[in-house]
Amino acid sequence: MSIYTLIQRKRDGEELSPEDLRRLLAGYAEGRLPDYQMAAFLMAVFFRGLSPAELGLFVEAILRSGVVLDLSEIPGPKVDKHSTGGVGDKVSLVLAPLAASLGVVVPMMSGRSLGHTGGTLDKLESIPGFRTALSVREVREQLARIGCVLVGQTDEIAPLDRKLYALRDATATVESIPLIASSIMGKKLAEGADALVLDVKLGAGAFLPDAARAVELARTMVEIGRAYGRQVTALMTAMDRPLGYAVGNALEVEEAILTLRGEGPADLRDVTLALAAEMLLLAGIAGDRERAREAAAAALADGRALRRMEQVVEAQGGNPAVLEDPALLPQAPVRRVLEAAAAGWVHAVDARRVGEAAAALGAGRMALGGAVDPAVGFHITAKPGDRVEAGEPLATVHARSTADAERGLRALGEAIRIGEDEGPRPLPLIGQRITGAPVERAATPR
Amino acid sequence: MSIYTLIQRKRDGEELSPEDLRRLLAGYAEGRLPDYQMAAFLMAVFFRGLSPAELGLFVEAILRSGVVLDLSEIPGPKVDKHSTGGVGDKVSLVLAPLAASLGVVVPMMSGRSLGHTGGTLDKLESIPGFRTALSVREVREQLARIGCVLVGQTDEIAPLDRKLYALRDATATVESIPLIASSIMGKKLAEGADALVLDVKLGAGAFLPDAARAVELARTMVEIGRAYGRQVTALMTAMDRPLGYAVGNALEVEEAILTLRGEGPADLRDVTLALAAEMLLLAGIAGDRERAREAAAAALADGRALRRMEQVVEAQGGNPAVLEDPALLPQAPVRRVLEAAAAGWVHAVDARRVGEAAAALGAGRMALGGAVDPAVGFHITAKPGDRVEAGEPLATVHARSTADAERGLRALGEAIRIGEDEGPRPLPLIGQRITGAPVERAATPR
Repeated sequence: MSIYTLIQRKRDGEELSPEDLRRLLAGYAEGRLPDYQMAAFLMAVFFRGLSPAELGLFVEAILRSGVVLDLSEIPGPKVDKHSTGGVGDKVSLVLAPLAASLGVVVPMMSGRSLGHTGGTLDKLESIPGFRTALSVREVREQLARIGCVLVGQTDEIAPLDRKLYALRDATATVESIPLIASSIMGKKLAEGADALVLDVKLGAGAFLPDAARAVELARTMVEIGRAYGRQVTALMTAMDRPLGYAVGNALEVEEAILTLRGEGPADLRDVTLALAAEMLLLAGIAGDRERAREAAAAALADGRALRRMEQVVEAQGGNPAVLEDPALLPQAPVRRVLEAAAAGWVHAVDARRVGEAAAALGAGRMALGGAVDPAVGFHITAKPGDRVEAGEPLATVHARSTADAERGLRALGEAIRIGEDEGPRPLPLIGQRITGAPVERAATPR
Repeated sequence: MSIYTLIQRKRDGEELSPEDLRRLLAGYAEGRLPDYQMAAFLMAVFFRGLSPAELGLFVEAILRSGVVLDLSEIPGPKVDKHSTGGVGDKVSLVLAPLAASLGVVVPMMSGRSLGHTGGTLDKLESIPGFRTALSVREVREQLARIGCVLVGQTDEIAPLDRKLYALRDATATVESIPLIASSIMGKKLAEGADALVLDVKLGAGAFLPDAARAVELARTMVEIGRAYGRQVTALMTAMDRPLGYAVGNALEVEEAILTLRGEGPADLRDVTLALAAEMLLLAGIAGDRERAREAAAAALADGRALRRMEQVVEAQGGNPAVLEDPALLPQAPVRRVLEAAAAGWVHAVDARRVGEAAAALGAGRMALGGAVDPAVGFHITAKPGDRVEAGEPLATVHARSTADAERGLRALGEAIRIGEDEGPRPLPLIGQRITGAPVERAATPR
């Protein structure tokens, strides 16, 4: 069957045979199928979706396109966490050492900032000396020794995913649930963890702002995990407003350090503890969610999580003194405070606008391959629902120049909306929990 | 606005601004926009269509991408004919000299065989010596002298159309009404005729087999012509069965010559006369359709059309003796006759299967750029609705080898279906007529 016919079948809503779809994906992975045919195919997938069987073949092709890590020789339960990306989402920096301090082996492989969302690797690299590119040997050695790595994906893992993602990113085929789900899960399955916690973001700042679609994405990923015999739990969490106060690389590292010390914003702490509890449950370390959460809170309170982060920073070449003195992190030369123009209630802190404004300051990148400025960003203490008085500080802009700071202030002024009434209710911070387990049903009397 | 955003807007069913769409199309024409972005865009157009304004911009971009011929210095009304392509469709070879013999200037620019459909240029080139590639100067000179050329499109006309078509042909984005309509009309408008008759095929062997979609294509093209101040008339004609008896290049030239002599199959003659009448009407040479048809029939009967074809063949370097002795055309070495296995009625002569079988013999090409065998093909005298007796000849295969002839016989045996009852009624040969004139309505009493 010709490639034209395969694209046509997908375009017309028919299901491709396993042989045909395997041939198409292998042809692309091996460079025989040109980008323009794959681009047309992906756009047809955007409109027509993938059948469960086709979705499985996408995952399989991505997973098998490179090295598949086998971490089975490292003792202990290996559990990773993946977030669909957000603004101010520095959870990984707290969660990975926290879970590791409680006995979970955490092979955390993260990405970089793109568009309005931040990236864990960019945040980590604002720690002077911190290396995010470790060899597979180094990853194994560090996991065996301290139970935690915070690294980028190596080039050998799932190369087809990078190739497909770069093409999707140029052809408006990013926002497709089966393509997102197969990209994330194909890669995560290749990284060798036994189980996975997914933090799926909801709201304006999320990758998929629509709640129903975000839930569908979560279900699809949980289902893929189940098909591969991996336990996957997804938590839906709010991304209508930024998470925590800090948005920007070094600023977020500083906030993560505060949180590892048992301080830090309540929302960041709550989401981190909820995800930690899920990791402990999947690892079989805690028997129920309430006790798991308490164990995680204790590890923040007594400094175990912070000490584990110290070990990780040291192992990966970073300066561990930043954990004692965050002033050693890069600092922006210009700071300006945004004050409330009038009294009222905070109606919204628009996460997408904040993310875009932070990227415009230099904290993120609008295209693959650009550089980021580690020092710049925002510290936004205003939260939706807060009562504010005229002149009360809402946020601080950290900028490279006064002109940038002015632009940042204007953008923040638009992102933070204040009204005269209490305003709309923000999304619940932690929403639905989706697992691969059979759905529990209430007994219904006949 | 980024290219991603433009593709995304089309994908999500929004209309692009004229500036944005112009920039996208110009970027592609000039090689700045990569094929993969245009492929994704075209697939989004397949699903979302084009608004009238967007369609106009596609036509304009194709039209203006190269040389726009100005034939205004050649005296007389310039009228072209375009067919959406079929099996056994040799109408142009009869129609062009016929209309020219009655005073119409016919700048007929045609294409080559592709897939299951034949191409006028391949047919013409089976005449020994016939040149289909004339310079613009030669075209003008010949039109002024004998009122007719039968040529291929020069490379300078509408290069964007060729580039888009090649991409669509590789990405399953061919079967889109706005893309087909803008391709045909952008090119035809650049070719400088004052008016255009469209032969839009219906039925299994047509490019768009579905009748409603074929009519929509015809309406779209007529509408584009009107927007450019050109009169366009479309006739819907049957392509459930082949037109005439001959399918294959030299065989079709022979049948065209017979028809120019006033002989030839009735269906070919009827379609040619109907299209000739429309050309004469658009040219203002005949006052009504009945008289136009009679004038055309007379020019076939008294040899004027044949003599005009003689002049064209001679002017374009071909051997005019083929018009007296078609045996000078290339002949296939092997002929085999297909006979009816049993008595009955012909239920179908499946035009698509016949076209595919002819291409498999070598008469057509399955990919751009291949060569064709001028001598091979079919001569199928059976027509749907015919009563046949057991052993009666239905068709002759003209092949390069006995193995090919056997394969051709088998394929024809499947394409020609005979049943015990009279069978389904074939499509009317000449169907709906669509013009740019206001729709006529029957008066409805209140």
